[in-house]
Amino acid sequence: MRQSLHHLQISTNLKGLVEITDEVKSFVESAGISTGLLTVFCRHTSASLLIQENADPDVLTDLEAFFDDIAPEDEDLYIHENEGPDDMPAHIRTALTCVNLSIPVDAGKMVLGTWQGIYLFEHREGPRNREIVLHIWGE
Amino acid sequence: MRQSLHHLQISTNLKGLVEITDEVKSFVESAGISTGLLTVFCRHTSASLLIQENADPDVLTDLEAFFDDIAPEDEDLYIHENEGPDDMPAHIRTALTCVNLSIPVDAGKMVLGTWQGIYLFEHREGPRNREIVLHIWGE
Amino acid sequence: MRQSLHHLQISTNLKGLVEITDEVKSFVESAGISTGLLTVFCRHTSASLLIQENADPDVLTDLEAFFDDIAPEDEDLYIHENEGPDDMPAHIRTALTCVNLSIPVDAGKMVLGTWQGIYLFEHREGPRNREIVLHIWGE
Repeated sequence: MRQSLHHLQISTNLKGLVEITDEVKSFVESAGISTGLLTVFCRHTSASLLIQENADPDVLTDLEAFFDDIAPEDEDLYIHENEGPDDMPAHIRTALTCVNLSIPVDAGKMVLGTWQGIYLFEHREGPRNREIVLHIWGE
Repeated sequence: MRQSLHHLQISTNLKGLVEITDEVKSFVESAGISTGLLTVFCRHTSASLLIQENADPDVLTDLEAFFDDIAPEDEDLYIHENEGPDDMPAHIRTALTCVNLSIPVDAGKMVLGTWQGIYLFEHREGPRNREIVLHIWGE
Repeated sequence: MRQSLHHLQISTNLKGLVEITDEVKSFVESAGISTGLLTVFCRHTSASLLIQENADPDVLTDLEAFFDDIAPEDEDLYIHENEGPDDMPAHIRTALTCVNLSIPVDAGKMVLGTWQGIYLFEHREGPRNREIVLHIWGE
């Protein structure tokens, strides 16, 4: 039983979904683990993680529109607005999604479904540097 | 320290919550692990997982109504509608819930609370075949 | 490779976010694990877990207002109202957040970001006793 941990840096420029499946795949492959468990953890409160369809980019556009709509950038709605109109909506959007994912590893690969991609969901205008921790263990 | 992994197939016919607690329990029991960690992973972007009350079925009805209401099947709202009116709402409902659960195992059992059941949340009309990966490790 | 499991009791009096970062930190420190994985699990369907900003308390106020608004305590909206107007909204708020967190441990500490705190999100009026299971493994 072995484990491996890596801090992944992702630069973002705009609000929206950034696919990180390839970066995570590389980590899993380099760990050389056949069966085990991968954890992805986002170290922020205004960016989150999502597993979503990576085939039709319209899905991402519609998802972003939904989250813009449910937590609008309207400063009249919030007390906390230290860093501008996208500040508090970013916290709400993070609360509605999540900052951690657990994905089993089977035959050396994450068990993602055919249409599943891993996304960093950036909720603030950038540029920003985001840090994601990848942890895997298994044998 | 041992681990075990299983691909569970669930058939669904309609949108809604399908309890899978018994199937997951059987897997945990067959693994024969006393203390450890269970991961449940749903390999889809239009079906998700939820831990919710399994006592009063009205809770499930109200939950389903809430998610119907928050992401309505109104094609005017979305660009992505390849597979019909329930397509994009399914992605949104999946994003608002989750596709992975982590449940500690203590004394050979999942540490679910008295009222907690594990549900597959089907967001599309069926019939459909859904695949869930169960992973457990411990000793 | 070692593991440790603990049942943490938290008393709540009111709806809202209760920070439990210190309690979780104590558990991680007492386990004496350098690299590994922490799981936090909430054994309830009307209380949940959230990782959010622990700097400006206005963030918590705005988050609570958002969840009050998205799932209002209006009994006309729900069938299930066995335990009063905060009953069904509590289930919805739990479904929109989560009951489990997975946090890697690096150099003996959870890899929480600078502004991240761990919260129990109480969705019912109290007083109530809530039970959270902490599980860690690693070496």
